[in-house]
Amino acid sequence: MHLLSIDDLSDAQIKAILDEGERWFAYNRQPRRNDHRLDGLTIVNAFFENSTRTLLSFEIAAHRLGAQVVTMQVEHSSIKKGETLEDTARTLNAMRPDAMVIRHGTSGAPADVAAIMDCPVINAGDGVGEHPTQALLDAATIRQHFGRIEGLKVTICGDIKHSRVARSNGKLLERLGAKLRFAGPPSLMPEGLAGGSIDEAVDGADVVMMLRVQRERLEEELGDGPGEFLARYGLTEARFAKAAPGAVIMHPGPINRGVEIEGSLADHPTCSLIVRQVEMGVAVRMACLDLLTAERLARV
Amino acid sequence: MHLLSIDDLSDAQIKAILDEGERWFAYNRQPRRNDHRLDGLTIVNAFFENSTRTLLSFEIAAHRLGAQVVTMQVEHSSIKKGETLEDTARTLNAMRPDAMVIRHGTSGAPADVAAIMDCPVINAGDGVGEHPTQALLDAATIRQHFGRIEGLKVTICGDIKHSRVARSNGKLLERLGAKLRFAGPPSLMPEGLAGGSIDEAVDGADVVMMLRVQRERLEEELGDGPGEFLARYGLTEARFAKAAPGAVIMHPGPINRGVEIEGSLADHPTCSLIVRQVEMGVAVRMACLDLLTAERLARV
Amino acid sequence: MHLLSIDDLSDAQIKAILDEGERWFAYNRQPRRNDHRLDGLTIVNAFFENSTRTLLSFEIAAHRLGAQVVTMQVEHSSIKKGETLEDTARTLNAMRPDAMVIRHGTSGAPADVAAIMDCPVINAGDGVGEHPTQALLDAATIRQHFGRIEGLKVTICGDIKHSRVARSNGKLLERLGAKLRFAGPPSLMPEGLAGGSIDEAVDGADVVMMLRVQRERLEEELGDGPGEFLARYGLTEARFAKAAPGAVIMHPGPINRGVEIEGSLADHPTCSLIVRQVEMGVAVRMACLDLLTAERLARV
Repeated sequence: MHLLSIDDLSDAQIKAILDEGERWFAYNRQPRRNDHRLDGLTIVNAFFENSTRTLLSFEIAAHRLGAQVVTMQVEHSSIKKGETLEDTARTLNAMRPDAMVIRHGTSGAPADVAAIMDCPVINAGDGVGEHPTQALLDAATIRQHFGRIEGLKVTICGDIKHSRVARSNGKLLERLGAKLRFAGPPSLMPEGLAGGSIDEAVDGADVVMMLRVQRERLEEELGDGPGEFLARYGLTEARFAKAAPGAVIMHPGPINRGVEIEGSLADHPTCSLIVRQVEMGVAVRMACLDLLTAERLARV
Repeated sequence: MHLLSIDDLSDAQIKAILDEGERWFAYNRQPRRNDHRLDGLTIVNAFFENSTRTLLSFEIAAHRLGAQVVTMQVEHSSIKKGETLEDTARTLNAMRPDAMVIRHGTSGAPADVAAIMDCPVINAGDGVGEHPTQALLDAATIRQHFGRIEGLKVTICGDIKHSRVARSNGKLLERLGAKLRFAGPPSLMPEGLAGGSIDEAVDGADVVMMLRVQRERLEEELGDGPGEFLARYGLTEARFAKAAPGAVIMHPGPINRGVEIEGSLADHPTCSLIVRQVEMGVAVRMACLDLLTAERLARV
Repeated sequence: MHLLSIDDLSDAQIKAILDEGERWFAYNRQPRRNDHRLDGLTIVNAFFENSTRTLLSFEIAAHRLGAQVVTMQVEHSSIKKGETLEDTARTLNAMRPDAMVIRHGTSGAPADVAAIMDCPVINAGDGVGEHPTQALLDAATIRQHFGRIEGLKVTICGDIKHSRVARSNGKLLERLGAKLRFAGPPSLMPEGLAGGSIDEAVDGADVVMMLRVQRERLEEELGDGPGEFLARYGLTEARFAKAAPGAVIMHPGPINRGVEIEGSLADHPTCSLIVRQVEMGVAVRMACLDLLTAERLARV
């Protein structure tokens, strides 16, 4: 079993991950943590794109379960020597890891790798494909806050077209019964999705999830300065004031203050769940690693 | 409790770190080491400046106490994506580390980070600020060698103005009763400190601590070639001959042979404590990590 | 005791490594692995050349024995600050590692380092010197497949002159009774070794070991395009058809498909041992780390 896409998970598995994620969330706040259930297992993180938060989050998650953790980063990889991704996968597989976490700039690369690996593969973000653990941690954060997901109005704003976060969240939150709305610059909306204005999309929303703007794209494609983007497409206090009572703000990070979100909203003591998402990230990844290796080890 | 500056430590804590450092020093020489007192704790090393010896020293120290160790290095960090240091700190804090070690090129950055973190923060060097564990390991090395620090004449030579090593050592050794003298090129002395000539400063010294010269600074500011610098401001055999009987040579490393110190002195079998300092570094960092997490875990 | 060259090993030690390597090979395929014999020991990987497979292989090997693993990579090293290799070695030695694995672009560098270290040093590849663990894993792979090495006809093809893999394999396989043949472009053969044509060398061989072509060398020295190299010096299906019945194909990786080897041969389900070599690599490195630290700990 792999976790390449939200589609790989049954409803029962999604529920198990959210439940276990909440449990690990509490566990991680304990002063002393002594779980060693993955003692003797080798987890390989293969990151073909730079990352701070996602790599650290997976490394910490694996360590907290007692696993042996090794990390391969792209700039040291044989890829530069012209090895194909499939040959790299065969090499890594021969080292008999017990789970592999992969981030890659090309959509579909984790699936190509998974087809070769004998161990579970977790997609930690592939191009404009998916980022299933991000969606799971977002769902767990929402459920922890509201006690439910069903029926909530969730608005996702930004570069919907190129966002693997939006894609995985769209799939997962819809399955869990949320009512989704998308908004963003017209050129950054996927085909077939018109995308209302951000003002309309935020109006009455329970959850406003802002996506990171790639600065490269900002300048090259949109021709906007940071302030202009905020005014036209970002989350401002005025816009957020029209969200539903008790609405919350989310963002996968890292945030661009004053670009897609006003700094005061990112820091809002009660409405912003942005830091909580990071905390839930480690917890949900522990749940995912545990679930996938448990199947492998016939522990469940 | 944080360790950002020597000022953060009480006299009793300083004594405890030196005592425990000496104990770990002996422990590290044992063929088998089985301490696991930080089992289940997560130590994050956040290095925003390149480093070999300090990072490895902290990584080994944390491993030798049984901790889970993860390292974030700047070239993979979100910093490059424009995230603020405070947002990076909030992200790392949300992952619930039990201690954080930070090196940063900007003076005061570790204090800014510590203000956000819920766990102890150790400053592993910040700009021209402090480097408290270097001073502690230097003090422990001196004390181990002489049996005392009080009353010793300690001369620190080099770029005093920009040296975090000199700043932390100055504070610590003065508190421990050493008699300090500073020497260096006039343009590299801090305001208010005239700085005798190196010849005068070394004359009669028990400890001669040479600082590393930044080669960039050497060429751009001093206009000296390596040999010229040695002749004017470096530690030569002729100069060291005038130190007190039984005097020792120290250097935080990495050394520039033939620039701030003659190679034969760096390698001197009885007078050079340079390699001993590195060994004591791991030991003192074990003592610091143990002390800071013990407070957190109410183990003391 | 160090492992810098095949010459460092007695016949009994070679046999022990191959035997233990095969045992670890089986162990690594178990669903759960709980060996902790190196608990409390610090293994330092000092890689002064980029590497994916060899570094990961050593990291995983050390983890699977329960060791504490720290890795220093060149781009973060003090080397860039002008520290000599000997000073870096003194620094690392002072941290009291229990074994050190070193890869370096300069032939002989591991021996220079080993002369300083108090712990066993394993050469993970030095310039055009040796790569003893590669030869050991190759020998173990051959022995596992054929049940013996003595009397087998082994052909090594490619840039023999600059290959540390060829050098170590030549020494080891000859000691183990194989009949060696070498082939490659005339300009890439060492002095005193004429090197038959690849067609002659493959004819009747039991093992055909292809070496990686450095693309830089390909263009600059040979003036060949990839396809031309394959036609003149690479392993094609037509050539391999003349090998002995039951012959196998080996390659230290990473492979250049269509340059030194046809892709279909690299992937050959029964004849290619390339992936098996990688798997044996972790196992044999476990055997080497165990042997070297066992001597140190008087466990044998």
